[in-house]
Amino acid sequence: MPGPVQSIERAAAILRLLAQGSGRLGLTEIANSLGLARGTAHGILRTLQLVGFVEQDEATGKYQLGAALLHLGTSYLDVNELRSRAINWADALAARSGEAVRIGTHLQGKVLVVHHVFRPDDSLQTLDVGMLLPMHATAIGKVLLAYDANAAAVLQDAVRGGELEQFTRRTVRTQRELSRMLAAVREHGWASDADETGMGEAGVAAPIRGYGGLVVGAMGISGATERICDSGGRPRPELVGYVRDAARAVSRDLGASRW
Amino acid sequence: MPGPVQSIERAAAILRLLAQGSGRLGLTEIANSLGLARGTAHGILRTLQLVGFVEQDEATGKYQLGAALLHLGTSYLDVNELRSRAINWADALAARSGEAVRIGTHLQGKVLVVHHVFRPDDSLQTLDVGMLLPMHATAIGKVLLAYDANAAAVLQDAVRGGELEQFTRRTVRTQRELSRMLAAVREHGWASDADETGMGEAGVAAPIRGYGGLVVGAMGISGATERICDSGGRPRPELVGYVRDAARAVSRDLGASRW
Repeated sequence: MPGPVQSIERAAAILRLLAQGSGRLGLTEIANSLGLARGTAHGILRTLQLVGFVEQDEATGKYQLGAALLHLGTSYLDVNELRSRAINWADALAARSGEAVRIGTHLQGKVLVVHHVFRPDDSLQTLDVGMLLPMHATAIGKVLLAYDANAAAVLQDAVRGGELEQFTRRTVRTQRELSRMLAAVREHGWASDADETGMGEAGVAAPIRGYGGLVVGAMGISGATERICDSGGRPRPELVGYVRDAARAVSRDLGASRW
Repeated sequence: MPGPVQSIERAAAILRLLAQGSGRLGLTEIANSLGLARGTAHGILRTLQLVGFVEQDEATGKYQLGAALLHLGTSYLDVNELRSRAINWADALAARSGEAVRIGTHLQGKVLVVHHVFRPDDSLQTLDVGMLLPMHATAIGKVLLAYDANAAAVLQDAVRGGELEQFTRRTVRTQRELSRMLAAVREHGWASDADETGMGEAGVAAPIRGYGGLVVGAMGISGATERICDSGGRPRPELVGYVRDAARAVSRDLGASRW
């Protein structure tokens, strides 16, 4: 079997690079970041520009992501079965819990948000679809990690320099703590986070299983810690019940028989 | 200067193909559609799968777009200056007009929606961001066509088999009619559509100009024909005024001096 096509791998690396940080980079910065000769990087960038995946700013000459990617991203959502099966259940969960609902799937060591229902009130909220969340500090991410067949490899990615990224003093710090946490998630069948991504923010999530029982995503609520958790700092049981019921309903629709 | 990198062009063609129709295709269908040898198509697909741009369904073996594209598409929106400068003005236009607001830019002979503000009422609406709209039947598209430096080439793309795609009996049919329509758009500085994409749907749009006065996008309202148009079938002058004011405000923020 032939190996991967090198120029396509390099093109993807350039696009990933442009999706980070400020989003605008010059030819030299791109070539240096990826260890490519300037001529090689230039040839790839010109082709990416030709197909609409990259745009070049006329004034500065810097490169940024192109409009064709937006359409491809939206088309991904259109065929995403997890999302299409979950939309109605997510709406119902938001209505029942009074909190925002997000559905996530695993992408390169992070949680990719594929669906987001706003909290049903008039507060100002921004759409999280397409955003990446940390796996070890969010309820959705913990569920995905706990049931991922490649969890060891994913964990390896998540742990950089021996310690997990810290968002607050409550964020899980070591791989050992995380392993213990994930074992508890598997035991209870759901996960939570409280003040771990930001002080005052909490969440509860449960696994979505597809055909054959494989976990294909996670569904959860998120909101203010004082609403999600009781006075003892634990997630309110009725909210946990709502989340688990909704995730089970989606799983059934996806063909997971044992639920 | 070296030519474009063929394998990247082919990879992009496969992604465009998967973004059409049902969104799921087998190896043979993909190879045949693009006139590639099966082995060549397979090597490209495996690489696209490796970088997360394509996913393969385990049960059917068919390919579909991958999760990494959603994140790239969202990242495109984050760096899109047209959109970030226009967000507040779009909100204000929706509030003032009472109608939905969309901002579009040109992508491969279509209008790519980069921002969408819902009509300010409680009606059920779906987000159009990332969608492609026909150029010749929408107000936003007519504006983009009227001011596009490559309008001739774009028109050529839009006209397939000598006739423009018909959505209703009011859709413009011939290239001659369209040219006359576009001349009127340039003369008045704004465009409209009424019952051209669907009966009962209408819109008004105006150009957004960037640095140096170049048209970089279009901004418009859309809604029920009876609300957008008066009894004579013409767009209500006050709505036209709101749209032009908003588009001018965005243009000024983008550095278009002559507005």
